[in-house]
Amino acid sequence: MRFLHTADWHIGKKLHGFDLSEAQTHAYHQIRQLAIDEQVDAVVIAGDLYDRAIPNEKSVTQLDEMLIDLNLKQHFPILAISGNHDSATRLRTGSRWFKETKYYLNTKLSQALTPIEFADTQFFLLPYFEPFEARRYFEDDQIRTAEAGMIKIVAAMQAKFNPAKKHVLVAHFFAAGSEHVDSETQVTVGGLNAIPVGLLAPFDYVALGHLHGKDALHADRVRYSGSPVKFSVSEAQQQKGVWIVDTDPFKIEFKPLSPERDVRVLENDFATLTNPQYYQQQKQDDYLAIRLTDKRVIPNVMQALREIYPNIIELERADGPVLTDTATAQIDPTLDPMTLMTQFFEQMTNDEMTAQQQTWAAQALTAATKEDN
Amino acid sequence: MRFLHTADWHIGKKLHGFDLSEAQTHAYHQIRQLAIDEQVDAVVIAGDLYDRAIPNEKSVTQLDEMLIDLNLKQHFPILAISGNHDSATRLRTGSRWFKETKYYLNTKLSQALTPIEFADTQFFLLPYFEPFEARRYFEDDQIRTAEAGMIKIVAAMQAKFNPAKKHVLVAHFFAAGSEHVDSETQVTVGGLNAIPVGLLAPFDYVALGHLHGKDALHADRVRYSGSPVKFSVSEAQQQKGVWIVDTDPFKIEFKPLSPERDVRVLENDFATLTNPQYYQQQKQDDYLAIRLTDKRVIPNVMQALREIYPNIIELERADGPVLTDTATAQIDPTLDPMTLMTQFFEQMTNDEMTAQQQTWAAQALTAATKEDN
Repeated sequence: MRFLHTADWHIGKKLHGFDLSEAQTHAYHQIRQLAIDEQVDAVVIAGDLYDRAIPNEKSVTQLDEMLIDLNLKQHFPILAISGNHDSATRLRTGSRWFKETKYYLNTKLSQALTPIEFADTQFFLLPYFEPFEARRYFEDDQIRTAEAGMIKIVAAMQAKFNPAKKHVLVAHFFAAGSEHVDSETQVTVGGLNAIPVGLLAPFDYVALGHLHGKDALHADRVRYSGSPVKFSVSEAQQQKGVWIVDTDPFKIEFKPLSPERDVRVLENDFATLTNPQYYQQQKQDDYLAIRLTDKRVIPNVMQALREIYPNIIELERADGPVLTDTATAQIDPTLDPMTLMTQFFEQMTNDEMTAQQQTWAAQALTAATKEDN
Repeated sequence: MRFLHTADWHIGKKLHGFDLSEAQTHAYHQIRQLAIDEQVDAVVIAGDLYDRAIPNEKSVTQLDEMLIDLNLKQHFPILAISGNHDSATRLRTGSRWFKETKYYLNTKLSQALTPIEFADTQFFLLPYFEPFEARRYFEDDQIRTAEAGMIKIVAAMQAKFNPAKKHVLVAHFFAAGSEHVDSETQVTVGGLNAIPVGLLAPFDYVALGHLHGKDALHADRVRYSGSPVKFSVSEAQQQKGVWIVDTDPFKIEFKPLSPERDVRVLENDFATLTNPQYYQQQKQDDYLAIRLTDKRVIPNVMQALREIYPNIIELERADGPVLTDTATAQIDPTLDPMTLMTQFFEQMTNDEMTAQQQTWAAQALTAATKEDN
């Protein structure tokens, strides 16, 4: 059979305060079109459908509409699991009904041991799990790590293997040896939750979710699809997309998704960035992390840049904070802490503190003073 | 056809801090048994399935299990709507799949105008709605009240009437002229949200939710089922249950539900209440609102009563607060406000303020003083 492998939709996620819902719908439409064009037999979604345990109502509606479209309108079987960002309990509401139309959503470890069978393939849908869940399920006090749990889980799955079929695992975890970036919160590198890739050898393919880049892991048959949308500056260089997987004979192909509005790093000096001949060549409304190469203090730099680039998500100095002679000279350690902090903020950011920021600064200073006493 | 009419399950509701989930499951089991024994063709749930817009995970699991049991295991068609306590958006997740097994859940006004058809009956499932939703749906700026919206809605439903069939409306609102009690929060009496019963004349039966007593309204064919469980002391005298309704020939019968633990008012003097010969005749673990007929101050009264009656939800003096000569004499208006409040509290409740209560009292006094200035 042929299936599409995607993961980490993170519906509801924001990018430095910017709403990504349109970007996510734009990506979804491309995924749907790929499923149609490639004539896949099913769509695999390997966890983190939502960005948070209690998504807001807009996100609930958005994901519901995507899944209704994919399963009830386009009639694709769906094979999905909950990730660490989802509330398994909330996500599973209604899932007992979904099966009627071949939308399989597993949110409990126990469900993972019953394969979903297609003509030539057994799918094992393993939701994100914590070591204690495996410990409880197998009634084995020795299970203290995800790895120890996974050894038991794989053995239990192998006991269900039909040798006449191919075996695909869908899961959501950190595979040991993967490279990760900073948007993948709650990722434990090499800690209690890492799963050695060697454990996964019994499967013909492992469709993973959790890490957001398709190249996070280098293994032919164990792959992250990555997220369909860039979720942070650290993902700026990643090519987002999905895998199209054939089980027999095994074949895998990456299909890129193109963003409506890209996440990019723009490194240049202020004069160039604000020169029409330069910026008119740019997609000005991309989400931009700007690295200024200037060394000097530039008044109102953020405001000036936002007039040209409306979706700035980061503004940094390429060579670290500006500390001109004038600036360092201005910092007088005999000043009161609030004045010092205000001056430091202005020199670092080229911006004045807002009223809210002043309140926070004052609270932080009060707290710090209390701890001193 | 024959159906069972229930409403206002309020899964997740607490009674003065006591968890009602077991009581609700106990009631559900009786409802299921009645549906089986009475061989109904469908179960109607007229809104407020949950007690709140964002139910906790335990409540999500509880309601999901009840509906899985009723629809997928017992194979009863379900006809349900969202009430004012439900988040229509959250409740509707997955509802597009529910239809496959005849679980019809309407959460949008627009859905109400497409009847669900059974052999001899058209059901119109109208979720709780606010006037602005009707105004927007009908694109009619004149709609400023629920009544004005309802006039339009009923007309639109009548346009869909098949004269060969019976017509049942399932709805969740305050019917003008109903009697209400204090647990039915957000009930507007005779205000913008009241619907005159006369408007409902075109229907053979109107299955209502919103008010918690079956006798809230006196109309043969427009009825509240009431909640399956008592949710406050004001409901202590109500007989909880469900209606079994036959559409042709029309017949209606009330089937009582018996509580695991009743809500009762117990009025007596302290000596009697603490006399084994009396209390051993009582169901001591009922949820009790105790009305003490004593006039005197009784030290540690709550503690003494709780040792006998573990689930006291209210403790009051039958004849109002205790103000003995001694007590009134003790109140000296020249004392500082906090001392006055503390004394008053102790005399009213026969209890000392907890540390938390003292904090609240102090905050209230500070706020009051500020307002004075």
